[in-house]
Amino acid sequence: MQNPPLKKVVVLGGGTGTFTVLSGLKNYPLDLAAIVSIADDGGSTGILRDELGVLPPGDIRQCLVALSSGDRVLRDLFNYRFTQGGLEGHNFGNIFLSALEKVNNDPLTAIKEANRILNVKGRVIPVSARAADLYAELEDSTVVKGQHAIDKPACERAQIRHCFLSPMPEANPEALQAIHDADVIVMGPGDLYTSLIPILLVQGVTNAIAQSRAERLLIVNLTSKRGQTQGYKASDFYNVVTKYAWPAPVDTVIVNVAQPSELVAQKYIEAGDHLIEDDLDGQSIKVWKCELLADDIANPVPGDRLKRSLLRHDPQKLAEAILKASGMAEYVIQSDLERLTSNV
Amino acid sequence: MQNPPLKKVVVLGGGTGTFTVLSGLKNYPLDLAAIVSIADDGGSTGILRDELGVLPPGDIRQCLVALSSGDRVLRDLFNYRFTQGGLEGHNFGNIFLSALEKVNNDPLTAIKEANRILNVKGRVIPVSARAADLYAELEDSTVVKGQHAIDKPACERAQIRHCFLSPMPEANPEALQAIHDADVIVMGPGDLYTSLIPILLVQGVTNAIAQSRAERLLIVNLTSKRGQTQGYKASDFYNVVTKYAWPAPVDTVIVNVAQPSELVAQKYIEAGDHLIEDDLDGQSIKVWKCELLADDIANPVPGDRLKRSLLRHDPQKLAEAILKASGMAEYVIQSDLERLTSNV
Repeated sequence: MQNPPLKKVVVLGGGTGTFTVLSGLKNYPLDLAAIVSIADDGGSTGILRDELGVLPPGDIRQCLVALSSGDRVLRDLFNYRFTQGGLEGHNFGNIFLSALEKVNNDPLTAIKEANRILNVKGRVIPVSARAADLYAELEDSTVVKGQHAIDKPACERAQIRHCFLSPMPEANPEALQAIHDADVIVMGPGDLYTSLIPILLVQGVTNAIAQSRAERLLIVNLTSKRGQTQGYKASDFYNVVTKYAWPAPVDTVIVNVAQPSELVAQKYIEAGDHLIEDDLDGQSIKVWKCELLADDIANPVPGDRLKRSLLRHDPQKLAEAILKASGMAEYVIQSDLERLTSNV
Repeated sequence: MQNPPLKKVVVLGGGTGTFTVLSGLKNYPLDLAAIVSIADDGGSTGILRDELGVLPPGDIRQCLVALSSGDRVLRDLFNYRFTQGGLEGHNFGNIFLSALEKVNNDPLTAIKEANRILNVKGRVIPVSARAADLYAELEDSTVVKGQHAIDKPACERAQIRHCFLSPMPEANPEALQAIHDADVIVMGPGDLYTSLIPILLVQGVTNAIAQSRAERLLIVNLTSKRGQTQGYKASDFYNVVTKYAWPAPVDTVIVNVAQPSELVAQKYIEAGDHLIEDDLDGQSIKVWKCELLADDIANPVPGDRLKRSLLRHDPQKLAEAILKASGMAEYVIQSDLERLTSNV
């Protein structure tokens, strides 16, 4: 008897949120694809992009590492950052992707090769073969240029009114095809304006999402981020994504309901941020509520500065929520059964 | 019936000559090991060595690429040299080895990992786990420091009187063991004072060669090299290697007897170099004479400057000469038979 084809899950993003989603999902028998932003311009990625004219490698590298079934050494190597000399600040994986693009003289071929060399479970697909700059127009009408500048504001500033890409990059046909063929499309968690939206902005992407038969999921962030989502509640995430994803609807919103300790919440307030409040009850939105926090959250030390990674999604819980919310609960049950059997 | 153990062939060197030997030998069913110098300090290699404190990666990379059974993309990638920006002049393979050493926090583990990742046919073994500086005392008693300075003299200068390493590096036990266990030890071709001799200078190496049951071969270079072997004949190569290899003898000398065209010879003269004359007849040295030139030598254009690679050893011919000269002619016959059979 032939096995049925694997369910196709497409994850849109590129940052640490996407890394968490991919890390969780890769343990299930799925046909996975990560569609990655090409607007990153910070740090090592920005330097390589500027100096060598390559696609920004940072987000692509993170997704490749998340899905790599290669060994630990190769993954450590890819994440290694040089701390001395002329290579200081550069990430080995970024240099690898840049060299591969130069050797192949084509970014898409290079990334296909990287998928192969790293024995990636699934596919990592840049949303376009060309880099683009991300711009944010703020509520006070000033315009901020560059994903890095938007992501890491040097000082307090007005809220983001809207974002756009320039030059408008042509979509990578393989990305559009993967979106079109998907059974599930996962948006978030992660930096809303600098990770998810730069993908939705690429011409053709939202139409492909709209035309797909996929269940379209939005995973709401756990906390706000200065300069991007301060003051946001869960409904703001839903509304902003719905606006940028137009004409594609968001079918289901996944929200965490586990409450961290008061001390943790307080740490975020001290740092000018806050937990995202779930205000989705009573609205005509399909919401999937579950506990998604990672268990190993470090207890903050009173007086210490907030570490960004204090609150994190648990990859396993997140993957289970995605599968259950998109009608694939049998994958979770099957996996639980296998775990039980292997423990006998 | 159990197969007999593979014959163990150890190649000493590191530069392009060693690359040629390894490229030829890897097509035979042999247990191959390349013992590589750790005194290189030129270009990208020198910068990485200085800035990051890693073993000089250049020669190691070349040998890894020669023996890699990985695909062409990986080999092209390893040899890729960045031509722009802050990475300009750096070779990707050098950066790879440096990052791997940093991640593993140990050069020998790192190179073992590189052997594995590149699926190397055989082993590439650094002669020591510590880098060293090569010094040359010239006939006019001046001392030149650094392999690169010795290799690429800025102007005319006196002949080399003798070379030494400082600090004296401890030998890598795996290198000594490989030499000790060898059936054949291949010295040369390649840069005499900057590729072969820095290996012989490491404490313990020549004793291991002397104690080995191996057939010890010296392959004489095709041409002289400014600053190293100007004026040398075949017997000079033999005498210098015999001096540095002491107490190990050289058992057999392999010399090319194919004559290039007058025009090619003239090109070398114009560049201040010359073909190496075979003056070994009538001396009590076991000599293996055969045609070793690569067939695809470019015809030099009159008036054009000499390209270093004009005359090269043919990897296949060189491998056959090594096997025949060390009593393994049956490998060549077997390989010829297989070629004939596969062509039927």
